[in-house]
Amino acid sequence: MIAEPAVILTCRDKIKTFEFLRAAGIDTPQTYTPQQIASAQDLHFPLFIKPRNGSASMSVRKLDDRDDLDYFLRKIDDPIVQEFVEGVEHTLDVYVGLTGRPRCVVPRARWQVRGGEVSKGVVVKDPKIMDAGRRVVEAMGDSVRGLVTLQCIVTQQGRIRFIEINPRFGGGAPLGVAAGADYPRWLLQELLGENPQIAFDGFEDGVCMLRYDWSAFIPLGASRKPRVSPSRQPFPDFDPRPSD
Amino acid sequence: MIAEPAVILTCRDKIKTFEFLRAAGIDTPQTYTPQQIASAQDLHFPLFIKPRNGSASMSVRKLDDRDDLDYFLRKIDDPIVQEFVEGVEHTLDVYVGLTGRPRCVVPRARWQVRGGEVSKGVVVKDPKIMDAGRRVVEAMGDSVRGLVTLQCIVTQQGRIRFIEINPRFGGGAPLGVAAGADYPRWLLQELLGENPQIAFDGFEDGVCMLRYDWSAFIPLGASRKPRVSPSRQPFPDFDPRPSD
Repeated sequence: MIAEPAVILTCRDKIKTFEFLRAAGIDTPQTYTPQQIASAQDLHFPLFIKPRNGSASMSVRKLDDRDDLDYFLRKIDDPIVQEFVEGVEHTLDVYVGLTGRPRCVVPRARWQVRGGEVSKGVVVKDPKIMDAGRRVVEAMGDSVRGLVTLQCIVTQQGRIRFIEINPRFGGGAPLGVAAGADYPRWLLQELLGENPQIAFDGFEDGVCMLRYDWSAFIPLGASRKPRVSPSRQPFPDFDPRPSD
Repeated sequence: MIAEPAVILTCRDKIKTFEFLRAAGIDTPQTYTPQQIASAQDLHFPLFIKPRNGSASMSVRKLDDRDDLDYFLRKIDDPIVQEFVEGVEHTLDVYVGLTGRPRCVVPRARWQVRGGEVSKGVVVKDPKIMDAGRRVVEAMGDSVRGLVTLQCIVTQQGRIRFIEINPRFGGGAPLGVAAGADYPRWLLQELLGENPQIAFDGFEDGVCMLRYDWSAFIPLGASRKPRVSPSRQPFPDFDPRPSD
Protein backbone atom coordinates (compact mmCIF):
# COMPACT_ATOMS: atom_id res chain seq x y z
CA MET A 1 0.00 0.00 0.00
CA ILE A 2 2.67 2.45 -1.04
CA ALA A 3 3.63 4.67 -3.97
CA GLU A 4 6.17 3.97 -6.73
CA PRO A 5 9.88 4.42 -5.87
CA ALA A 6 10.15 7.59 -8.02
CA VAL A 7 7.42 9.26 -5.94
CA ILE A 8 9.09 8.24 -2.69
CA LEU A 9 12.47 9.57 -3.84
CA THR A 10 10.90 12.95 -4.72
CA CYS A 11 9.24 13.16 -1.31
CA ARG A 12 12.32 12.16 0.72
CA ASP A 13 14.54 14.78 -0.96
CA LYS A 14 13.44 18.26 0.16
CA ILE A 15 15.07 19.91 -2.86
CA LYS A 16 13.18 17.59 -5.23
CA THR A 17 9.98 18.22 -3.25
CA PHE A 18 10.51 21.97 -3.62
CA GLU A 19 11.15 21.68 -7.37
CA PHE A 20 8.09 19.45 -7.85
CA LEU A 21 5.78 21.83 -5.95
CA ARG A 22 7.19 24.90 -7.70
CA ALA A 23 6.78 23.26 -11.14
CA ALA A 24 3.18 22.32 -10.27
CA GLY A 25 2.39 25.94 -9.37
CA ILE A 26 1.82 25.16 -5.68
CA ASP A 27 2.74 27.70 -2.99
CA THR A 28 5.88 26.56 -1.11
CA PRO A 29 8.66 28.40 0.78
CA GLN A 30 11.82 29.28 -1.15
CA THR A 31 14.36 26.49 -0.59
CA TYR A 32 18.13 26.59 -1.15
CA THR A 33 21.00 24.16 -1.37
CA PRO A 34 24.20 25.22 0.50
CA GLN A 35 25.67 26.19 -2.90
CA GLN A 36 22.69 28.42 -3.67
CA ILE A 37 22.93 30.03 -0.21
CA ALA A 38 26.62 30.79 -0.77
CA SER A 39 25.80 32.77 -3.91
CA ALA A 40 22.46 34.27 -2.79
CA GLN A 41 22.41 38.06 -3.08
CA ASP A 42 20.16 39.14 -0.20
CA LEU A 43 19.21 36.70 2.54
CA HIS A 44 16.38 37.60 4.88
CA PHE A 45 16.58 36.11 8.36
CA PRO A 46 15.18 34.16 10.09
CA LEU A 47 15.70 31.09 7.92
CA PHE A 48 15.25 27.37 8.59
CA ILE A 49 17.87 24.66 8.15
CA LYS A 50 17.19 20.91 8.03
CA PRO A 51 18.70 17.74 6.60
CA ARG A 52 17.89 17.24 2.92
CA ASN A 53 16.50 13.75 3.73
CA GLY A 54 15.38 14.30 7.33
CA SER A 55 12.19 13.35 9.12
CA ALA A 56 10.51 13.76 12.53
CA SER A 57 12.05 17.25 13.02
CA MET A 58 15.53 15.74 13.40
CA SER A 59 18.18 18.50 13.36
CA VAL A 60 15.71 21.21 12.32
CA ARG A 61 16.93 24.65 13.42
CA LYS A 62 15.74 28.21 13.12
CA LEU A 63 18.54 30.52 12.02
CA ASP A 64 18.39 34.07 13.37
CA ASP A 65 21.52 35.46 11.76
CA ARG A 66 24.57 34.65 9.66
CA ASP A 67 26.43 33.33 12.74
CA ASP A 68 23.72 30.64 13.12
CA LEU A 69 23.75 29.93 9.36
CA ASP A 70 27.53 29.50 9.19
CA TYR A 71 27.62 27.26 12.27
CA PHE A 72 24.80 24.90 11.21
CA LEU A 73 25.99 24.70 7.60
CA ARG A 74 29.18 23.23 9.10
CA LYS A 75 27.33 20.93 11.55
CA ILE A 76 24.40 19.45 9.61
CA ASP A 77 25.22 16.86 7.02
CA ASP A 78 23.70 17.52 3.57
CA PRO A 79 21.39 20.35 4.67
CA ILE A 80 18.88 22.56 2.90
CA VAL A 81 17.98 26.10 3.92
CA GLN A 82 14.43 27.33 3.70
CA GLU A 83 12.58 30.62 3.93
CA PHE A 84 11.07 30.88 7.44
CA VAL A 85 7.28 31.04 7.26
CA GLU A 86 5.23 32.15 10.24
CA GLY A 87 1.83 30.54 10.71
CA VAL A 88 0.06 27.43 11.96
CA GLU A 89 1.37 24.09 10.78
CA HIS A 90 -1.32 21.82 9.35
CA THR A 91 -1.13 18.17 8.38
CA LEU A 92 -3.46 16.99 5.61
CA ASP A 93 -4.44 13.33 5.34
CA VAL A 94 -5.36 12.70 1.71
CA TYR A 95 -7.10 9.38 1.14
CA VAL A 96 -6.35 7.98 -2.32
CA GLY A 97 -6.87 4.29 -1.56
CA LEU A 98 -6.28 2.03 -4.56
CA THR A 99 -7.56 4.51 -7.15
CA GLY A 100 -4.65 6.96 -6.81
CA ARG A 101 -7.07 9.90 -6.81
CA PRO A 102 -7.83 12.14 -3.80
CA ARG A 103 -11.21 11.12 -2.40
CA CYS A 104 -11.15 12.75 1.05
CA VAL A 105 -8.85 15.39 2.59
CA VAL A 106 -8.73 15.88 6.38
CA PRO A 107 -6.72 18.93 7.54
CA ARG A 108 -5.47 18.84 11.12
CA ALA A 109 -3.94 21.90 12.81
CA ARG A 110 -0.87 20.97 14.85
CA TRP A 111 -1.25 22.68 18.20
CA GLN A 112 1.64 20.89 19.83
CA VAL A 113 4.35 18.62 18.47
CA ARG A 114 6.60 16.30 20.47
CA GLY A 115 9.53 14.51 18.86
CA GLY A 116 8.19 15.46 15.42
CA GLU A 117 4.78 13.85 16.07
CA VAL A 118 1.59 15.73 16.84
CA SER A 119 0.61 15.57 20.54
CA LYS A 120 -2.28 18.08 20.40
CA GLY A 121 -4.20 18.60 17.17
CA VAL A 122 -7.64 19.55 15.88
CA VAL A 123 -9.56 18.82 12.68
CA VAL A 124 -10.01 22.01 10.63
CA LYS A 125 -12.63 21.44 7.93
CA ASP A 126 -11.58 24.35 5.73
CA PRO A 127 -12.56 24.00 2.02
CA LYS A 128 -9.60 26.12 0.84
CA ILE A 129 -7.06 23.93 2.66
CA MET A 130 -8.82 20.74 1.54
CA ASP A 131 -8.80 21.91 -2.07
CA ALA A 132 -5.11 22.88 -1.90
CA GLY A 133 -4.30 19.36 -0.64
CA ARG A 134 -6.31 17.82 -3.45
CA ARG A 135 -4.32 19.79 -6.02
CA VAL A 136 -0.95 18.68 -4.57
CA VAL A 137 -1.89 15.01 -4.75
CA GLU A 138 -3.42 15.33 -8.23
CA ALA A 139 -0.09 16.83 -9.39
CA MET A 140 1.68 13.70 -8.07
CA GLY A 141 -0.10 11.53 -10.63
CA ASP A 142 -2.13 8.40 -9.96
CA SER A 143 0.65 6.07 -8.76
CA VAL A 144 0.11 7.03 -5.10
CA ARG A 145 -1.72 4.53 -2.85
CA GLY A 146 -3.41 4.46 0.52
CA LEU A 147 -2.97 7.74 2.41
CA VAL A 148 -0.75 10.68 1.46
CA THR A 149 0.26 12.94 4.36
CA LEU A 150 0.98 16.56 3.44
CA GLN A 151 2.26 19.36 5.63
CA CYS A 152 1.66 23.04 5.08
CA ILE A 153 1.86 26.29 6.98
CA VAL A 154 -1.25 28.49 6.95
CA THR A 155 -0.24 32.12 7.35
CA GLN A 156 -2.26 34.87 9.00
CA GLN A 157 -2.90 36.23 5.48
CA GLY A 158 -4.43 32.87 4.50
CA ARG A 159 -1.60 31.61 2.27
CA ILE A 160 -1.35 27.82 2.29
CA ARG A 161 2.34 26.99 1.83
CA PHE A 162 3.33 23.32 1.48
CA ILE A 163 6.57 22.08 3.07
CA GLU A 164 6.36 18.26 3.16
CA ILE A 165 4.88 15.35 1.25
CA ASN A 166 4.91 11.92 2.88
CA PRO A 167 3.33 9.24 0.66
CA ARG A 168 2.26 7.09 3.62
CA PHE A 169 0.14 7.10 6.80
CA GLY A 170 1.32 9.72 9.31
CA GLY A 171 1.41 9.35 13.08
CA GLY A 172 -1.61 11.62 13.61
CA ALA A 173 -3.93 9.81 11.19
CA PRO A 174 -6.02 8.34 14.07
CA LEU A 175 -7.45 11.84 14.59
CA GLY A 176 -9.01 11.75 11.10
CA VAL A 177 -10.40 8.29 11.82
CA ALA A 178 -11.90 9.57 15.09
CA ALA A 179 -13.54 12.39 13.10
CA GLY A 180 -15.21 9.83 10.84
CA ALA A 181 -12.78 9.45 7.92
CA ASP A 182 -12.47 5.69 8.27
CA TYR A 183 -9.36 5.04 6.13
CA PRO A 184 -8.75 1.49 7.39
CA ARG A 185 -12.33 0.42 6.62
CA TRP A 186 -12.24 2.08 3.18
CA LEU A 187 -8.95 0.34 2.34
CA LEU A 188 -10.25 -3.05 3.45
CA GLN A 189 -13.43 -2.52 1.43
CA GLU A 190 -11.40 -1.64 -1.67
CA LEU A 191 -9.16 -4.66 -1.17
CA LEU A 192 -12.31 -6.86 -0.97
CA GLY A 193 -13.48 -5.43 -4.30
CA GLU A 194 -16.23 -3.38 -2.70
CA ASN A 195 -16.87 0.26 -3.55
CA PRO A 196 -16.74 2.32 -0.34
CA GLN A 197 -18.96 5.39 -0.25
CA ILE A 198 -16.49 8.21 0.44
CA ALA A 199 -17.56 11.85 0.66
CA PHE A 200 -14.78 14.39 0.09
CA ASP A 201 -15.90 16.18 3.27
CA GLY A 202 -17.28 13.14 5.09
CA PHE A 203 -15.86 13.93 8.50
CA GLU A 204 -16.63 16.04 11.55
CA ASP A 205 -15.12 19.49 12.06
CA GLY A 206 -13.37 20.47 15.32
CA VAL A 207 -12.51 17.04 16.72
CA CYS A 208 -9.48 17.43 18.98
CA MET A 209 -6.80 14.85 19.80
CA LEU A 210 -4.80 15.01 23.04
CA ARG A 211 -1.95 12.55 23.40
CA TYR A 212 -0.54 11.60 26.76
CA ASP A 213 1.90 9.09 28.22
CA TRP A 214 0.59 5.69 29.14
CA SER A 215 2.79 2.98 30.60
CA ALA A 216 3.23 -0.75 30.62
CA PHE A 217 5.14 -2.28 33.56
CA ILE A 218 6.89 -5.57 32.86
CA PRO A 219 8.65 -7.62 35.54
CA LEU A 220 11.80 -8.79 33.74
CA GLY A 221 13.28 -10.14 36.98
CA ALA A 222 16.87 -9.58 38.07
CA SER A 223 18.27 -12.59 36.20
CA ARG A 224 16.97 -11.46 32.80
CA LYS A 225 17.83 -7.81 33.35
CA PRO A 226 20.60 -6.59 31.05
CA ARG A 227 23.75 -5.52 32.83
CA VAL A 228 24.75 -1.89 33.09
CA SER A 229 26.79 -0.99 30.02
CA PRO A 230 28.21 2.31 28.80
CA SER A 231 26.36 2.27 25.50
CA ARG A 232 22.66 2.48 24.77
CA GLN A 233 20.89 -0.65 25.94
CA PRO A 234 19.32 -2.86 23.30
CA PHE A 235 15.72 -3.48 24.18
CA PRO A 236 15.20 -6.95 25.70
CA ASP A 237 12.49 -9.43 24.80
CA PHE A 238 9.33 -8.75 26.74
CA ASP A 239 5.75 -9.74 27.13
CA PRO A 240 3.84 -6.73 25.78
CA ARG A 241 0.71 -7.08 27.93
CA PRO A 242 0.11 -3.82 29.80
CA SER A 243 -0.25 -4.15 33.54
CA ASP A 244 -3.37 -2.01 33.65
CA MET B 1 5.29 18.28 50.74
CA ILE B 2 8.40 20.12 49.64
CA ALA B 3 11.81 21.17 50.93
CA GLU B 4 12.88 24.54 52.35
CA PRO B 5 13.57 27.37 49.86
CA ALA B 6 17.34 27.21 50.50
CA VAL B 7 17.42 23.54 49.42
CA ILE B 8 15.39 24.30 46.29
CA LEU B 9 17.70 27.18 45.34
CA THR B 10 20.76 24.93 45.67
CA CYS B 11 19.15 22.27 43.48
CA ARG B 12 17.96 24.66 40.76
CA ASP B 13 21.39 26.26 40.33
CA LYS B 14 23.77 23.73 38.76
CA ILE B 15 26.85 25.57 40.03
CA LYS B 16 25.49 25.50 43.59
CA THR B 17 24.60 21.81 43.14
CA PHE B 18 28.16 21.10 42.01
CA GLU B 19 29.66 23.00 44.94
CA PHE B 20 27.35 21.25 47.42
CA LEU B 21 28.19 17.78 46.08
CA ARG B 22 31.93 18.54 45.92
CA ALA B 23 31.89 19.86 49.51
CA ALA B 24 30.03 16.74 50.68
CA GLY B 25 32.67 14.49 49.10
CA ILE B 26 30.28 13.06 46.52
CA ASP B 27 31.50 12.11 43.04
CA THR B 28 30.25 14.64 40.46
CA PRO B 29 31.57 15.81 37.06
CA GLN B 30 33.75 18.92 36.99
CA THR B 31 31.53 21.94 36.29
CA TYR B 32 32.56 25.40 35.08
CA THR B 33 31.02 28.84 34.78
CA PRO B 34 31.71 30.65 31.46
CA GLN B 35 34.32 32.73 33.34
CA GLN B 36 36.09 29.59 34.56
CA ILE B 37 36.02 28.11 31.04
CA ALA B 38 37.61 31.27 29.63
CA SER B 39 40.58 30.92 31.97
CA ALA B 40 40.79 27.09 32.04
CA GLN B 41 44.24 25.82 31.08
CA ASP B 42 43.54 22.54 29.32
CA LEU B 43 40.03 21.64 28.23
CA HIS B 44 39.26 18.06 27.22
CA PHE B 45 36.48 17.62 24.71
CA PRO B 46 33.73 16.48 24.50
CA LEU B 47 32.07 18.72 27.09
CA PHE B 48 28.42 19.39 27.94
CA ILE B 49 26.72 22.78 28.03
CA LYS B 50 23.34 23.51 29.66
CA PRO B 51 21.45 26.40 31.22
CA ARG B 52 22.49 27.06 34.82
CA ASN B 53 18.81 26.80 35.88
CA GLY B 54 17.49 24.45 33.19
CA SER B 55 15.30 21.38 33.41
CA ALA B 56 13.86 18.63 31.16
CA SER B 57 17.00 18.63 28.93
CA MET B 58 16.13 22.08 27.56
CA SER B 59 19.06 23.47 25.54
CA VAL B 60 21.46 20.71 26.62
CA ARG B 61 24.22 20.22 24.04
CA LYS B 62 27.26 18.04 23.66
CA LEU B 63 30.30 20.07 22.60
CA ASP B 64 32.79 18.26 20.38
CA ASP B 65 35.29 21.05 19.88
CA ARG B 66 36.07 24.71 20.54
CA ASP B 67 33.88 25.78 17.58
CA ASP B 68 30.85 24.21 19.36
CA LEU B 69 31.89 25.71 22.70
CA ASP B 70 32.26 29.25 21.33
CA TYR B 71 28.95 29.08 19.44
CA PHE B 72 26.83 27.78 22.33
CA LEU B 73 28.46 30.08 24.91
CA ARG B 74 27.08 32.89 22.71
CA LYS B 75 23.65 31.24 22.23
CA ILE B 76 22.67 29.82 25.63
CA ASP B 77 21.69 32.30 28.27
CA ASP B 78 23.50 31.88 31.62
CA PRO B 79 25.08 28.50 30.80
CA ILE B 80 27.34 26.11 32.66
CA VAL B 81 29.85 23.77 31.05
CA GLN B 82 30.40 20.29 32.40
CA GLU B 83 32.85 17.45 31.95
CA PHE B 84 31.27 14.88 29.60
CA VAL B 85 30.80 11.54 31.37
CA GLU B 86 30.11 8.38 29.43
CA GLY B 87 27.87 5.80 31.06
CA VAL B 88 24.27 4.89 31.80
CA GLU B 89 22.06 7.59 33.28
CA HIS B 90 20.19 6.49 36.39
CA THR B 91 17.45 8.24 38.31
CA LEU B 92 17.17 7.51 42.04
CA ASP B 93 13.90 8.01 43.88
CA VAL B 94 14.76 8.61 47.53
CA TYR B 95 11.76 8.42 49.85
CA VAL B 96 12.17 10.69 52.88
CA GLY B 97 8.49 11.26 53.66
CA LEU B 98 7.92 13.54 56.63
CA THR B 99 11.00 12.42 58.58
CA GLY B 100 13.54 14.02 56.22
CA ARG B 101 15.70 10.89 56.34
CA PRO B 102 16.22 8.45 53.42
CA ARG B 103 14.08 5.37 54.07
CA CYS B 104 14.03 3.72 50.64
CA VAL B 105 16.11 4.31 47.47
CA VAL B 106 14.90 3.00 44.08
CA PRO B 107 17.46 3.33 41.24
CA ARG B 108 16.03 3.29 37.72
CA ALA B 109 18.27 3.01 34.63
CA ARG B 110 17.12 5.38 31.88
CA TRP B 111 17.12 3.33 28.71
CA GLN B 112 15.35 5.95 26.64
CA VAL B 113 14.42 9.56 27.29
CA ARG B 114 11.89 11.68 25.41
CA GLY B 115 11.55 15.41 26.02
CA GLY B 116 13.66 15.04 29.18
CA GLU B 117 11.34 12.39 30.67
CA VAL B 118 12.09 8.67 30.82
CA SER B 119 10.16 6.65 28.22
CA LYS B 120 11.91 3.30 28.80
CA GLY B 121 13.42 2.48 32.17
CA VAL B 122 14.20 -0.43 34.47
CA VAL B 123 14.59 -0.82 38.23
CA VAL B 124 18.23 -1.65 39.11
CA LYS B 125 18.42 -2.85 42.71
CA ASP B 126 22.14 -2.21 43.16
CA PRO B 127 23.28 -1.73 46.79
CA LYS B 128 26.20 0.53 45.78
CA ILE B 129 23.94 2.91 43.86
CA MET B 130 21.29 2.84 46.62
CA ASP B 131 23.90 3.66 49.25
CA ALA B 132 25.35 6.50 47.16
CA GLY B 133 21.85 8.00 46.87
CA ARG B 134 21.34 7.71 50.61
CA ARG B 135 24.58 9.62 51.24
CA VAL B 136 23.58 12.48 48.90
CA VAL B 137 20.25 12.98 50.66
CA GLU B 138 21.79 12.67 54.15
CA ALA B 139 24.20 15.46 53.15
CA MET B 140 21.19 17.67 52.29
CA GLY B 141 20.08 17.69 55.92
CA ASP B 142 16.67 16.77 57.27
CA SER B 143 14.60 19.63 55.79
CA VAL B 144 13.73 17.62 52.67
CA ARG B 145 10.22 16.15 52.41
CA GLY B 146 8.38 13.58 50.31
CA LEU B 147 10.51 12.19 47.49
CA VAL B 148 13.93 13.44 46.36
CA THR B 149 14.84 12.59 42.76
CA LEU B 150 18.56 12.27 42.05
CA GLN B 151 20.30 11.71 38.73
CA CYS B 152 23.68 10.10 38.27
CA ILE B 153 25.75 8.51 35.54
CA VAL B 154 27.13 5.03 36.24
CA THR B 155 30.34 4.54 34.27
CA GLN B 156 31.68 1.26 32.90
CA GLN B 157 34.30 1.40 35.68
CA GLY B 158 31.49 1.54 38.27
CA ARG B 159 31.86 5.20 39.28
CA ILE B 160 28.56 6.72 40.39
CA ARG B 161 28.71 10.40 39.42
CA PHE B 162 25.80 12.64 40.46
CA ILE B 163 24.62 15.39 38.10
CA GLU B 164 21.17 16.51 39.35
CA ILE B 165 19.17 16.84 42.56
CA ASN B 166 15.43 17.51 42.27
CA PRO B 167 13.77 17.78 45.70
CA ARG B 168 10.39 16.61 44.38
CA PHE B 169 8.60 13.69 42.66
CA GLY B 170 10.04 13.00 39.19
CA GLY B 171 8.07 11.96 36.12
CA GLY B 172 9.30 8.36 36.26
CA ALA B 173 8.34 7.75 39.90
CA PRO B 174 5.41 5.45 38.90
CA LEU B 175 8.01 2.81 37.96
CA GLY B 176 9.17 2.63 41.58
CA VAL B 177 5.54 2.37 42.72
CA ALA B 178 4.98 -0.48 40.23
CA ALA B 179 8.03 -2.23 41.71
CA GLY B 180 6.45 -2.07 45.17
CA ALA B 181 7.83 1.17 46.65
CA ASP B 182 4.42 2.63 47.44
CA TYR B 183 5.35 6.28 48.08
CA PRO B 184 1.78 7.64 47.89
CA ARG B 185 0.52 5.12 50.47
CA TRP B 186 3.49 5.77 52.77
CA LEU B 187 2.93 9.52 52.58
CA LEU B 188 -0.77 9.18 53.33
CA GLN B 189 0.00 6.89 56.26
CA GLU B 190 2.51 9.38 57.67
CA LEU B 191 0.02 12.23 57.25
CA LEU B 192 -2.56 10.17 59.17
CA GLY B 193 -0.06 9.74 62.02
CA GLU B 194 0.54 6.09 61.23
CA ASN B 195 3.98 4.54 61.06
CA PRO B 196 4.43 2.88 57.64
CA GLN B 197 6.69 -0.15 57.54
CA ILE B 198 9.32 0.80 54.97
CA ALA B 199 12.23 -1.47 54.08
CA PHE B 200 15.24 0.29 52.51
CA ASP B 201 15.22 -2.36 49.77
CA GLY B 202 11.49 -3.13 49.83
CA PHE B 203 10.96 -3.29 46.09
CA GLU B 204 11.36 -5.69 43.19
CA ASP B 205 14.44 -5.73 40.98
CA GLY B 206 14.21 -5.61 37.17
CA VAL B 207 10.73 -4.13 36.72
CA CYS B 208 10.64 -2.35 33.36
CA MET B 209 8.49 0.64 32.33
CA LEU B 210 7.60 1.27 28.71
CA ARG B 211 5.77 4.49 27.93
CA TYR B 212 3.70 4.95 24.80
CA ASP B 213 1.28 7.48 23.34
CA TRP B 214 -2.36 7.17 24.27
CA SER B 215 -5.00 9.58 22.99
CA ALA B 216 -8.22 11.25 24.01
CA PHE B 217 -10.51 12.50 21.21
CA ILE B 218 -12.78 15.39 22.11
CA PRO B 219 -15.43 16.79 19.77
CA LEU B 220 -15.11 20.55 20.29
CA GLY B 221 -17.44 21.29 17.38
CA ALA B 222 -16.78 23.91 14.70
CA SER B 223 -18.33 26.79 16.67
CA ARG B 224 -16.08 26.33 19.71
CA LYS B 225 -12.95 25.66 17.65
CA PRO B 226 -10.34 28.42 17.98
CA ARG B 227 -9.63 30.29 14.76
CA VAL B 228 -6.36 29.82 12.91
CA SER B 229 -3.84 32.28 14.31
CA PRO B 230 -0.13 32.76 13.67
CA SER B 231 0.90 32.20 17.26
CA ARG B 232 0.70 29.11 19.40
CA GLN B 233 -2.92 28.28 20.22
CA PRO B 234 -4.01 28.50 23.82
CA PHE B 235 -5.57 25.24 24.86
CA PRO B 236 -9.38 25.45 24.94
CA ASP B 237 -11.69 24.20 27.66
CA PHE B 238 -12.50 20.56 27.18
CA ASP B 239 -14.17 17.57 28.70
CA PRO B 240 -11.24 15.32 29.65
CA ARG B 241 -13.06 11.98 29.34
CA PRO B 242 -11.05 9.72 26.99
CA SER B 243 -13.02 8.28 24.11
CA ASP B 244 -11.73 4.76 24.68
